[in-house]
Amino acid sequence: MLGSTYGTLTTDSRRARVIACGEQPGLAVHGRAGTDDADVSGRPLSADVPDLDRFFRPESIAVVGASDAEGRPNTGITRQLMAWAERVGARLHPVHPTRETVFGLACSPSVAELPEQVDLAVLLVGDPLPVIEQLADTKVKFAVAFASGFAETGEEGAAAQERLAEAVARSGLRLLGPNTNLNAFEKFRDDLDGPAIALITQSGHQGRPVFTLQELGIRLSHWAPTGNEADLETSDFISYFSQRPEVGAIACYVEGLKDGRSFLLAADRAARAKVPVVAVKVGRTETGARTAASHTGKLTGADTVVDAAMRQFGVIRVDGLDELQDTAALLARARPPQADGVVVYSISGGTGAHFSDLATAGGLNLPVLSEAKQAELHQWIPEYLNVSNPVDNGGHPVGDWRGRKIIDAILADPSVGVLICPITGPFPPMSDKLAQDLVDAAEQTDKLVCVIWGSPVGTEDAYRETLLGSSRVATFRTFANCVTAVRAHLEHHRFTAAYRSPFEDAPRTPSPSFRKAQALMRPGKQLSEHAAKQLLRAYGIRVPREQLVTSAAAAVRAASLVGYPVVMKASAPQLAHKSELGLVKVGLTSASQVRDAYRELTDIARYEGIELDGVLVCQMVERGVEMVVGVTHDELFGPTVTVGLGGVLVEVLQDTAVRVPPFGEDQARALLGELRGRALLDGVRGAPPADVDALVEVILRVQRMALELHDDLAELDINPLMVLPRGQGAVALDALAVCR
Amino acid sequence: MLGSTYGTLTTDSRRARVIACGEQPGLAVHGRAGTDDADVSGRPLSADVPDLDRFFRPESIAVVGASDAEGRPNTGITRQLMAWAERVGARLHPVHPTRETVFGLACSPSVAELPEQVDLAVLLVGDPLPVIEQLADTKVKFAVAFASGFAETGEEGAAAQERLAEAVARSGLRLLGPNTNLNAFEKFRDDLDGPAIALITQSGHQGRPVFTLQELGIRLSHWAPTGNEADLETSDFISYFSQRPEVGAIACYVEGLKDGRSFLLAADRAARAKVPVVAVKVGRTETGARTAASHTGKLTGADTVVDAAMRQFGVIRVDGLDELQDTAALLARARPPQADGVVVYSISGGTGAHFSDLATAGGLNLPVLSEAKQAELHQWIPEYLNVSNPVDNGGHPVGDWRGRKIIDAILADPSVGVLICPITGPFPPMSDKLAQDLVDAAEQTDKLVCVIWGSPVGTEDAYRETLLGSSRVATFRTFANCVTAVRAHLEHHRFTAAYRSPFEDAPRTPSPSFRKAQALMRPGKQLSEHAAKQLLRAYGIRVPREQLVTSAAAAVRAASLVGYPVVMKASAPQLAHKSELGLVKVGLTSASQVRDAYRELTDIARYEGIELDGVLVCQMVERGVEMVVGVTHDELFGPTVTVGLGGVLVEVLQDTAVRVPPFGEDQARALLGELRGRALLDGVRGAPPADVDALVEVILRVQRMALELHDDLAELDINPLMVLPRGQGAVALDALAVCR
Repeated sequence: MLGSTYGTLTTDSRRARVIACGEQPGLAVHGRAGTDDADVSGRPLSADVPDLDRFFRPESIAVVGASDAEGRPNTGITRQLMAWAERVGARLHPVHPTRETVFGLACSPSVAELPEQVDLAVLLVGDPLPVIEQLADTKVKFAVAFASGFAETGEEGAAAQERLAEAVARSGLRLLGPNTNLNAFEKFRDDLDGPAIALITQSGHQGRPVFTLQELGIRLSHWAPTGNEADLETSDFISYFSQRPEVGAIACYVEGLKDGRSFLLAADRAARAKVPVVAVKVGRTETGARTAASHTGKLTGADTVVDAAMRQFGVIRVDGLDELQDTAALLARARPPQADGVVVYSISGGTGAHFSDLATAGGLNLPVLSEAKQAELHQWIPEYLNVSNPVDNGGHPVGDWRGRKIIDAILADPSVGVLICPITGPFPPMSDKLAQDLVDAAEQTDKLVCVIWGSPVGTEDAYRETLLGSSRVATFRTFANCVTAVRAHLEHHRFTAAYRSPFEDAPRTPSPSFRKAQALMRPGKQLSEHAAKQLLRAYGIRVPREQLVTSAAAAVRAASLVGYPVVMKASAPQLAHKSELGLVKVGLTSASQVRDAYRELTDIARYEGIELDGVLVCQMVERGVEMVVGVTHDELFGPTVTVGLGGVLVEVLQDTAVRVPPFGEDQARALLGELRGRALLDGVRGAPPADVDALVEVILRVQRMALELHDDLAELDINPLMVLPRGQGAVALDALAVCR
Repeated sequence: MLGSTYGTLTTDSRRARVIACGEQPGLAVHGRAGTDDADVSGRPLSADVPDLDRFFRPESIAVVGASDAEGRPNTGITRQLMAWAERVGARLHPVHPTRETVFGLACSPSVAELPEQVDLAVLLVGDPLPVIEQLADTKVKFAVAFASGFAETGEEGAAAQERLAEAVARSGLRLLGPNTNLNAFEKFRDDLDGPAIALITQSGHQGRPVFTLQELGIRLSHWAPTGNEADLETSDFISYFSQRPEVGAIACYVEGLKDGRSFLLAADRAARAKVPVVAVKVGRTETGARTAASHTGKLTGADTVVDAAMRQFGVIRVDGLDELQDTAALLARARPPQADGVVVYSISGGTGAHFSDLATAGGLNLPVLSEAKQAELHQWIPEYLNVSNPVDNGGHPVGDWRGRKIIDAILADPSVGVLICPITGPFPPMSDKLAQDLVDAAEQTDKLVCVIWGSPVGTEDAYRETLLGSSRVATFRTFANCVTAVRAHLEHHRFTAAYRSPFEDAPRTPSPSFRKAQALMRPGKQLSEHAAKQLLRAYGIRVPREQLVTSAAAAVRAASLVGYPVVMKASAPQLAHKSELGLVKVGLTSASQVRDAYRELTDIARYEGIELDGVLVCQMVERGVEMVVGVTHDELFGPTVTVGLGGVLVEVLQDTAVRVPPFGEDQARALLGELRGRALLDGVRGAPPADVDALVEVILRVQRMALELHDDLAELDINPLMVLPRGQGAVALDALAVCR
């Protein structure tokens, strides 16, 4: 039933494209869950995690286009692949049409003639398409295509990429690239222990700083340079990495996404596995979005929507690569927090004051230490210094046996989950001992110990040897990055502890409302206000009592049925800005006023050349808080629900927030918290608190409608939704609906 | 005349304090301009720049409490001071009551018995007060007091500091400290050329990172660790450094200020000298403000006010010490920009996209390069790469002769003032050559060349040797800091080019309005609405035609004089929230309505127990944009002017902005630009644009009133000020004024 209704209406771009090419949908989804596991909009409810074990640890590799000729670029690449194959214990088979051997290894003339079935084929050829077609028969699991000249170069390249994607879809293999590089096959340090960062980047250069973290002792397990993502995409790697035991955090550099739903499903999988995903996502500005699109030819999406999607599914978005490094490194290695209290400990009152200021502004919770704890600290710290938090030791105690006592005493406090020690000035007699004490203390606690090494030089031994030598201390170079990372760490654990996948509750079958709604839809048309309100009513959203009438006498009859006072509005499809045109009359209290109003409205409409389908006579609704609730379509995520405060002022301030379906009641409430004017709902200047529960219910019903009508509903705008005082509900006073 | 009116009403805290102690004001201001050079509020109009040459380069020094005894802290300090004296060529005289010699130098038993008049006395004694008193007779110019235990320790310490400050004021010398340290006497690198950073810090530890910049090749000329500022304060050093030819930028770490006006005057002096001041100011949050206050015992001020004051006078506020370093280093060394266009140049499309995104979001202007320039670049860069800006060279061209050509071609473009090259991944075959080309190109241009070295390691030769070895390339470690610093650089030059000191135009004598206003003031009382409006009228601010009446018959007479329709309001001193109490009637159109309204208002007042002084019958004013304009007192800066959008929504959103007098029309307009709802003034939803000129005029008149009435006016609140359509003015519909 669903299939027939929605089968061809999916926004999953790859499937849509393949369908357009006349293929069976089934062929394109690579063994993913089909429509059996789909929500009412026809989109999948779970991501199949591609098994990439044999990609990252193949037993055998074919290198197509291998070379050992002096000066050819492929020669260097072949050499690097041979070294990598040796490290991972894979057999390497060069493929070349004319050579007998490459670097002494026997060459196959084509992939059809390989001596064994290989796990991975690396394609060093200008046009990978013919090779992909040959590979279709060889049961190779994975291929990598380095060649550029695809979607990143414009329309022609995009068409070539399309053909490549189709060939891959037919072949049964999974492709990384095209326009990717050797990053997956670099030499990773294997002497580092503990949870690692797995890295996914849409640009090799941009991933380099995270990779380089290994030189600072941070373990990296994987690097997936996804290139143009003709097949395997960022989301596939997020899903895969989130299931790997050695991965402590996933770091991503993302310019665009291939498909919004895959991203949500991957993030959902990571959230359920409690594996943090930290991402730079380009596209804060038009310039960034445009440039990123021209770089890899992907969709960047509306940034507010991407941002909301990330927050909903717990993806930690950061702006700088330095933040990406520092946040991913902390989240990969820190143990779950035992408390959310942060203590700032420093050898300078100034440093303590400054860092506390930024930490508090950044949303960290700095509890005041108990009197007993302060008394304990004053055993070692002079009485006149402040130890309430921040703890200022004045410097001297760190130089002797007291230093370690103070740290241990702070860490023993049950309100403390995190100790942060900013060391802005390296002063070896103090800072060397302090660094060592912090490292030693960190080894003996599960609590998080952070140090900020503020020297701009960074070659000091206490930094290089002592602090970076410890995997238990998180070391930062700036106050800001420490605050960002610690907040992300605490929020990640809060988020995943409370996380319930909205895909579990997503509707799979249409509600009874759906059939009623379908009957109201007029493809390609904007509905009249009356019809739009009937649509809302079909989904259980309250609208004023109202009647559509076509004579003054009927208007008077309607008014007495609806109940005085009434509002009258001209009604026509495609009619907007009614108030500005004088096509709304409010506060009508008698039959004669209703008759006059009818005449006046029809006169204006005639004058303006508007063909009315009648006049609406509506119940007048007492005052509440005016909101707007709407549905728009995002190129990446399909229908999204936007909520804002109504009225002219907030129109100016654009105080709205958005959510990407599917989302639950928790996210509908969180959305309201993002509105700057949220306090209006709580009642200001003596106004009663508004019925927030009813508002949340409307938001969820609108989401349901958006999912069920999906592509058929191009746009919905309830403006205003009058939210009445608590217990009295919410009423949609006007609505605009556009059908596709 | 001014003296008699305002002499004792100053908010200059030191003077106020000294006056309270029974001293002559003249004694306390250390040769500063007296009231001759004061504005109408009695506050100074220019800062005397203390001549600190002999402080930083003394010819002779006394070290009081010098020691060479093993293990005494003073011994180490004495040794450091001897080394410093030798470097600056000063004679050093130890002072000790009992020792004959210290480190072989003859000791004086007291400062009275020094062999010569010294420029600087360094006091290594627990209680500096008696020494200051002895020094009063010796004509010593400067003293430094290291001792702690003053205002930073609480009330008792604050009183001790007060006594010290008084002794200093009597002595004729200038004191640095107490609670300061040796930072001013550290060893500065003298092998670095070009403009230097001068550093001012209220915490030694917090200044260390900037000092350490010398190890990265950034020149530092001075370090003033101001400690508790019993006498010499941050502002004195800003004034002094802004006049020194070797100083390119002033970097400050500020926890609190001693006096707001001194700070404004110092910043004004720096702005006029076009010397950038970059400052971290603690106090974004309550926690930060409280902790900072406990650290040095200074006033932190309301952060929004401090922030506004800094912006008004061009002080560049940053949050992190890393931003302080990077911004000060750039501003010290960069030449004035020739254009504000920024070109992003990179060896990776991803890096270009990402950095452009952050740069645009950060307010930098990335012009699209001309077709001709793009064609020129495509001589060396493959056609399929984007060179419009960002310029993506794809990597390979940097490795050969093309690399330098590209850089030179970009720098030759007249729209380009800044070239930024983010190198996120060090890849020696490319990045070494690229770094060298950038350094070479930078040597041959006055334009600004910035590089971001994104590797987290920072020990690479291209970074340490090539980039840091050049004083012409500005090298950063993060995208964010580069954007912050470049924006600050461009804004600093824009600001100083347009800067006109508001002190030049500040009123020195009371306006004719002042005498009228004085007659209306009622010390300690809140004025009635009617009186408050008369106060506004005295300053030429329009109020509705209105009459205060005490009978229904008089109300009817007043209404016909004022003109129907009218508004009627109960009037009484101390009366607020009139609307909520039902004490306002609007839209009255007839004598009978006026009579009824009079009765109703007086009935309600009787019921509520409010003693009315009458009823106001006011002209009804057509709708415009509702604003609020107010005056409040800041502990640091005295009266400030706050402007916001009126109405319930913006009350919720707290959309206000503040200015610290004195300010001119430019700043009054800039203030409006800071309002989020600024667009309302331009007219939305078909409303006409509001009379912004009239609004600006009201703001300036309110400032004048605040300056003239100064401490006598505790609070003023015009709410609403109705700003009518352009050309029609602005009318204060209601006002609240509280006298002190």
